[in-house]
Amino acid sequence: MEKKLDRLKELLAEIYDLNGVEGLLGWDQQTYMPPGATEQRGYQAATIARLAHQKLTSKEIGNLLDDLEPYASQLSPDSSDARLVKVTRRQYDKEVKVPSDWVAEYAQARSAAHPAWAEARADNNFPKFQPTLEKILEMRRRYAGFFAPYEHVYDPLLDDFEPGLKTADVKAIFNALRPQQVELIKQIAGKPEIGNSFLHQEYDEQKQWDFGVEVITKFGYDWHRGRLDRSPHPFTGGSSSDDVRITTRFAKDNGVSALFSTMHEAGHALYELGCDPALNRSPLVGGASLAVHESQSRMWENLIGRSMPFWEHFYARFQSLFPEQLGDVSLQQFYRAINKVQPSLIRVEADEATYNLHIMLRLELEIALMEGSLAVKDLPEAWNSRMQEYLGLLPPNDSLGVLQDVHWSMGLVGYFSTYALGNLVSAQLWECIQRDLPDLDDQIRQGEFSYLLGWLRKNIHQHGAKFEPQELVQQVTGSKIDAQPYMHYLRKKYSQVYDL
Amino acid sequence: MEKKLDRLKELLAEIYDLNGVEGLLGWDQQTYMPPGATEQRGYQAATIARLAHQKLTSKEIGNLLDDLEPYASQLSPDSSDARLVKVTRRQYDKEVKVPSDWVAEYAQARSAAHPAWAEARADNNFPKFQPTLEKILEMRRRYAGFFAPYEHVYDPLLDDFEPGLKTADVKAIFNALRPQQVELIKQIAGKPEIGNSFLHQEYDEQKQWDFGVEVITKFGYDWHRGRLDRSPHPFTGGSSSDDVRITTRFAKDNGVSALFSTMHEAGHALYELGCDPALNRSPLVGGASLAVHESQSRMWENLIGRSMPFWEHFYARFQSLFPEQLGDVSLQQFYRAINKVQPSLIRVEADEATYNLHIMLRLELEIALMEGSLAVKDLPEAWNSRMQEYLGLLPPNDSLGVLQDVHWSMGLVGYFSTYALGNLVSAQLWECIQRDLPDLDDQIRQGEFSYLLGWLRKNIHQHGAKFEPQELVQQVTGSKIDAQPYMHYLRKKYSQVYDL
Repeated sequence: MEKKLDRLKELLAEIYDLNGVEGLLGWDQQTYMPPGATEQRGYQAATIARLAHQKLTSKEIGNLLDDLEPYASQLSPDSSDARLVKVTRRQYDKEVKVPSDWVAEYAQARSAAHPAWAEARADNNFPKFQPTLEKILEMRRRYAGFFAPYEHVYDPLLDDFEPGLKTADVKAIFNALRPQQVELIKQIAGKPEIGNSFLHQEYDEQKQWDFGVEVITKFGYDWHRGRLDRSPHPFTGGSSSDDVRITTRFAKDNGVSALFSTMHEAGHALYELGCDPALNRSPLVGGASLAVHESQSRMWENLIGRSMPFWEHFYARFQSLFPEQLGDVSLQQFYRAINKVQPSLIRVEADEATYNLHIMLRLELEIALMEGSLAVKDLPEAWNSRMQEYLGLLPPNDSLGVLQDVHWSMGLVGYFSTYALGNLVSAQLWECIQRDLPDLDDQIRQGEFSYLLGWLRKNIHQHGAKFEPQELVQQVTGSKIDAQPYMHYLRKKYSQVYDL
Repeated sequence: MEKKLDRLKELLAEIYDLNGVEGLLGWDQQTYMPPGATEQRGYQAATIARLAHQKLTSKEIGNLLDDLEPYASQLSPDSSDARLVKVTRRQYDKEVKVPSDWVAEYAQARSAAHPAWAEARADNNFPKFQPTLEKILEMRRRYAGFFAPYEHVYDPLLDDFEPGLKTADVKAIFNALRPQQVELIKQIAGKPEIGNSFLHQEYDEQKQWDFGVEVITKFGYDWHRGRLDRSPHPFTGGSSSDDVRITTRFAKDNGVSALFSTMHEAGHALYELGCDPALNRSPLVGGASLAVHESQSRMWENLIGRSMPFWEHFYARFQSLFPEQLGDVSLQQFYRAINKVQPSLIRVEADEATYNLHIMLRLELEIALMEGSLAVKDLPEAWNSRMQEYLGLLPPNDSLGVLQDVHWSMGLVGYFSTYALGNLVSAQLWECIQRDLPDLDDQIRQGEFSYLLGWLRKNIHQHGAKFEPQELVQQVTGSKIDAQPYMHYLRKKYSQVYDL
């Protein structure tokens, strides 16, 4: 059995290498690849993905899993070997159940959908995107069918991003959250608007860059196993657990957006970099799920990066870099400005108070579309009416509404909720951290993040993908994913900021 | 048969993708990869190389070749399809003849040899390297054995880099060349030394960078399919025929070394970028051999980049960038300085007149080592005595002598001669170019390189790896690789520079 386990590990290491190589191909494409290389890069990525798929779905891995499962069931259930067999079985079943002709058809549908979406958005013409979105949804329904029986047609989609999570769970969580969050926004809307024009000026990019580097270095980002570059859309990428790179981008008229995106990506990177090296070159490397990943990025970006203790440490330094822009701006003014709440049409520009509502809207529409209770042609109207209900805004056109996100054109149906779930998990963890590290605020005021990072490593990072997200959250916080800590966090924060 | 040919092309395209991915892994490692990623990058590169090897040596490719060879023999012998079958057969036979246990043992020997060499060089202690070099040579002899019978034990090694070329051919070429080149150097040694101290100052790196970019842009380097970066050792790399990247490096006390290395790598890149796109994703993409490749890099670096017409166009501009260093240096003084001949101990610092002698010395020693007529323990003495004979210099220690090059520690026995052969081919081609483009010097004086590049594309670049080097040279110049044009070129040039 040990021999079989070793053989399984050997095969999985090869697959891990291929996935890492695919990661590098993607990183390179977003950063330094010459534009003329696009077509051939597509072939390369497809070849590597196909080889990884073939290797994972090989008979040999199937047989090894069959042989090893009885053995693994006698191991401690949380041991790495037991988890390796479990996680591999899960991935294997997912990949073998999906016929390769569906995969090919889907790849084609997605590559047709992306330009259709881009054109529809540019022309502000939803009907141009409608047929391709219908095709995508039809294919996602067929995809769900491969995993029948299921409780809900949306379950298999969600499961790709949040292993083990059910649609009913997410609905229950969001149903508890939505009215509270809408109510909070209404309260804030009754308060005087916060001035933040000093943020919206030109800030020297090199100084922004240097400050971002200073901050994430203090966070504990390991430059020996990572690097920072620019890209059109910030992301965390790289090629292995020893190569976790991040990117950022600069906005012409915003002095802090690059900083927050750098902190966000550093949060993702710290998670990957904190994985136990004993799991290297296995499918247990990485994160538990997108939501848990997002809990890390949002924690460093928001719970830390938009907190008063953080700026008590860093503001004097930041101000000294930008005396023209911030010379006469007090810490309190600055803190309020970076926490200003303003319902807006665009998700990626949303503040902490409104962000989740953008997500809930999308989740509800995705579920309705998958169920068939909403037709694609009626989607823009459904979008707009919800925007009015949740955020009090009516998109003037579909480009600023239903066409704003790239996800559906990439086939990513089932993905959005992970953003909001990540926010919730970040606050759940934060409550535990504050309990375990009562001096945390003081530490942050001193620019001391090592105890915090140590806590995250011990409780979250080291485990990689060993546990399902609900298991992990339960294990660390004592309860499953829950909306209340996040609502407490928001209410407390905005009571200060807006004097509610 | 058409179906079988299509299937062969499909399999070869996948192998091409893997090779391209390996190219990117290497480029990244030399440029931007975080240092901590080294170990896992090694696994990734090994995995990709192993998959490419497995795919190339598959039964399916063997059977397709067997089936297609009779068919291909009826095609026009220079057609791409006929050449595809021929080149694939050649590569297939090479790879299947080498047992995988030898490959594994060799990989281990090389990875042990590299640190042994580095340590020996640092400690100036050849005996530390001796046993690993003995092991490398013993393995290279076994490697040659896989291709027995052969005329000469060195033939199979040479053939890896120069398909079709025999040791006897290279010996004959070099035997004709050596006395002439030694004689030329003696003549030059009798002339007054050229002053070049103005080159050996600090030159602003950014200005050097910008000037290099200006120059290779005029050469016709395609930035849409390439890019320039820094790396410890300049090289040409990338991931496909649409992604040919170059690197350069700067010397603290030399204002032109980065420029010449940029032009050199641009020459390699122009070759790769000029390959017929109809050959894309096949083993016919690339260059005919290392020597033909080097003929291109050395042509742009030396025959163009160190020529008077080139500097008649560029010197005023270069001078204006560095008025402090070059303000009172005339074009003639500058031209003579960059063409100064000075026998030196180190190959990579050698000028055009002495370079080939460094190569011949290595070739003769490699052949003697492979034949067994020279023992590794006697290598330093053999090196030193030849250095005295050819260049009149005695290395004060082995680090500046036999230990200077990395190649042997990487198992690259059979490689060196391609450098010198490239010089010879560059001059052979140059004679044809001057015949076909009688206005070439005037064009270069105008900064006009497009006719030259057009000639190279038509006669050399477009063919990729379709022809063996001797075939290609014969086809273009009417004779095989020949030393006389290079000697004519050197004599003519140095007669001017040194007033011989």
